[in-house]
Amino acid sequence: MLEKSQAKYIQSLSQKKFRDQEQAFIAEGPKIINELLLAANIELLALYAIGEWVSDNPDLASKIPKGRFFEIKEKELERVSNLQTPNQVVAVFKKPVFPQPIFENKISLLLDGIQDPGNMGTLLRTADWFGIGQVICNKETVDVFNTKVVQSTMGSIARVQVIYEDLEGFLKKHPNLPVYATELDGKNLFDIKEAKACFVLIGNESKGVRPELSALASEHIMIPKFGMAESLNAAVAAGIVLGHLLSANR
Amino acid sequence: MLEKSQAKYIQSLSQKKFRDQEQAFIAEGPKIINELLLAANIELLALYAIGEWVSDNPDLASKIPKGRFFEIKEKELERVSNLQTPNQVVAVFKKPVFPQPIFENKISLLLDGIQDPGNMGTLLRTADWFGIGQVICNKETVDVFNTKVVQSTMGSIARVQVIYEDLEGFLKKHPNLPVYATELDGKNLFDIKEAKACFVLIGNESKGVRPELSALASEHIMIPKFGMAESLNAAVAAGIVLGHLLSANR
Repeated sequence: MLEKSQAKYIQSLSQKKFRDQEQAFIAEGPKIINELLLAANIELLALYAIGEWVSDNPDLASKIPKGRFFEIKEKELERVSNLQTPNQVVAVFKKPVFPQPIFENKISLLLDGIQDPGNMGTLLRTADWFGIGQVICNKETVDVFNTKVVQSTMGSIARVQVIYEDLEGFLKKHPNLPVYATELDGKNLFDIKEAKACFVLIGNESKGVRPELSALASEHIMIPKFGMAESLNAAVAAGIVLGHLLSANR
Repeated sequence: MLEKSQAKYIQSLSQKKFRDQEQAFIAEGPKIINELLLAANIELLALYAIGEWVSDNPDLASKIPKGRFFEIKEKELERVSNLQTPNQVVAVFKKPVFPQPIFENKISLLLDGIQDPGNMGTLLRTADWFGIGQVICNKETVDVFNTKVVQSTMGSIARVQVIYEDLEGFLKKHPNLPVYATELDGKNLFDIKEAKACFVLIGNESKGVRPELSALASEHIMIPKFGMAESLNAAVAAGIVLGHLLSANR
């Protein structure tokens, strides 16, 4: 059974203010929740599931500490779900815990004002595919624990550390690594022959990298354009840059 | 003024059946409509705009043939819009006209069952960026004239020819070009050193390339994975493959 206070708590977590206050977020559906339940760095606070999830996942269900598991009715699930089609289970997790980040020997991704939750999720999935464990975003970038972002990351949220920080300040604190800003003009990406440790900076979907930040970049790089499209999607651009840099490093 | 029959006609075009019957589609908002109005291969059938669009775009408005331009009220725009926030203008266009496609000397993209309209739009934009003028899709792929796809292509719909055809039959008709199927295992994409003319085959978002079609590929290629994500977004994968092949050809 779902108590009124529980429903209210779950619903409150669709607001960033409450996610920050509680250091918690919600996920929905078996695919992502089952993956997060197995992640060592994410603590489950409460899981609300209909009987179907329990019978489909007896092993996972049996390992949930008493007092954190609640079997609920389909109607109750509908009441707290953010999905158009509620999907078996809703869970509240503590935000993931990561070790102190180290930037000196790896490629990290910097995001300057990504707005669209779907783009943000795809960016994290792309970073995760390429083993990029650290993404630094300014406050104008959508919250990674936004319910829509969580759903579209497909579990990468447990593996990629997302840090919100003023990017200008961040770059001034790390002056020794090259910063590649992806822009509509600059050096051809494919001319970069090695980039073992660096920051890759991706700008806002429509405005690109802000000039103040672009001024702090050591290289302005461009994905060569052979056709007429005005721009590339931010996650597609990040994928092309990361793919090339990692292959160039071989 | 918007007549009842006009509203009904516009609304009917959100269904594929009527788009196919009329060989027409709808677009919304100044950004995409203004771009399509300038495309030489797309005929405008009717444009319905509020006064704001007309005063913002006097040159475009004055060039629209009489009988195809209708100034409407905001309330009328809301009635026919598919957008959450209707945006000044709705237009009905004939599907674009393209010359007979030639595959022998270029890279073409093949899509095997892309479902998500946003992914489809991003795939077309990516193809357009890289100058890939031809995309061949099987019938299971979402219709490129679907209203959501049109909105997310950002005008690439006028420049990239999308052909719906049985992919197995298509590949059998073009046996002389290499077919690169992107899969979760296979040859490392970055080991391909040249690919002047070929087909790049991208599979469905969750199921990948179907085995029947994969069997017709001459090379199975993989984007090397350094992390843990289960898969890459289809448009991100296409961008990485196309970017690499075009740079390898330099």
